[in-house]
Amino acid sequence: MELGLIHVYTGEGKGKTTAAIGQMIRSLGSGLKIIFVQFLKADDTGETGILSNLTPPVEVKRFNTQKKFIWNMKPEEIEVLKNDSQKGYEYISNIITENSCDLLVLDEFNWVLNKNFIDLNEFLYLLKNKPASMEIIITGRNAPSSLIEMADYVTEMKKIKHPMDKGIQARPGIER
Amino acid sequence: MELGLIHVYTGEGKGKTTAAIGQMIRSLGSGLKIIFVQFLKADDTGETGILSNLTPPVEVKRFNTQKKFIWNMKPEEIEVLKNDSQKGYEYISNIITENSCDLLVLDEFNWVLNKNFIDLNEFLYLLKNKPASMEIIITGRNAPSSLIEMADYVTEMKKIKHPMDKGIQARPGIER
Repeated sequence: MELGLIHVYTGEGKGKTTAAIGQMIRSLGSGLKIIFVQFLKADDTGETGILSNLTPPVEVKRFNTQKKFIWNMKPEEIEVLKNDSQKGYEYISNIITENSCDLLVLDEFNWVLNKNFIDLNEFLYLLKNKPASMEIIITGRNAPSSLIEMADYVTEMKKIKHPMDKGIQARPGIER
Repeated sequence: MELGLIHVYTGEGKGKTTAAIGQMIRSLGSGLKIIFVQFLKADDTGETGILSNLTPPVEVKRFNTQKKFIWNMKPEEIEVLKNDSQKGYEYISNIITENSCDLLVLDEFNWVLNKNFIDLNEFLYLLKNKPASMEIIITGRNAPSSLIEMADYVTEMKKIKHPMDKGIQARPGIER
């Protein structure tokens, strides 16, 4: 690819991670090399098996050793998650500096930034110096404004209606 | 699946079709039977080959015999597109009434409704009488308000930034 851009999918609505997954499928169809890095996600959602079994596969990595949702974590567990996230950051820093894929997806990374697990300015510096051809997608609520400023492509998934508001729980195959 | 809901992805931002594709991948991972119906789309974008080669495959159908974008069509070509769209509608009506999948995606169907290629009330009646377990996703700009009213899940992909605004054309592997 000639020109790699930076995408941000943010907002309260459904579709941030799924838009990134759909983008990976589209890009795979055009032969791009893809790495999908999940931060914070507690569970294997249905898509990861499919993505890593494609030919060529999407490389899938998840950095949450406790497999728990952050809002169920005690302070000492949050510290472990912070450490996991920093390992994930080291992993992606290497990918970016070594230019080892065409499309890099950082799922829920806006959480990592908002929790100050990673220094925002350090990440922006890394992004600013990314290989020109690398496409990078960052998902998660509350994208920092300085990241929005730097990105080329920003979509706010605005929640108009969500079934959880009617008390419908997350369903296998759809929400998880 | 016990409970099938109706999703709408609308708005001017990127991520409507890709969110539907990502949802299909997640749902496939949970073993759901999926049909992906594309209205209006002129070209095969990279994803369709991947989706139809999965095991089990996503059934992919496209209803645009002229393979042209609507904004490049002459009035007589629009008539052909209308006819194509009506055939597509017949196809999906059968799927819905015969309950022949778990997840049905109607890509760019909001255009079909806005162009009055299909009667909106007829479609709403069909949706209202859908099998209880069937999940249906409808994408496209300018979702009609009565459809939003009926849907369970509505996300507006709000454009904050789009590279086309800077004059960057659609790139293979990313936008198409």
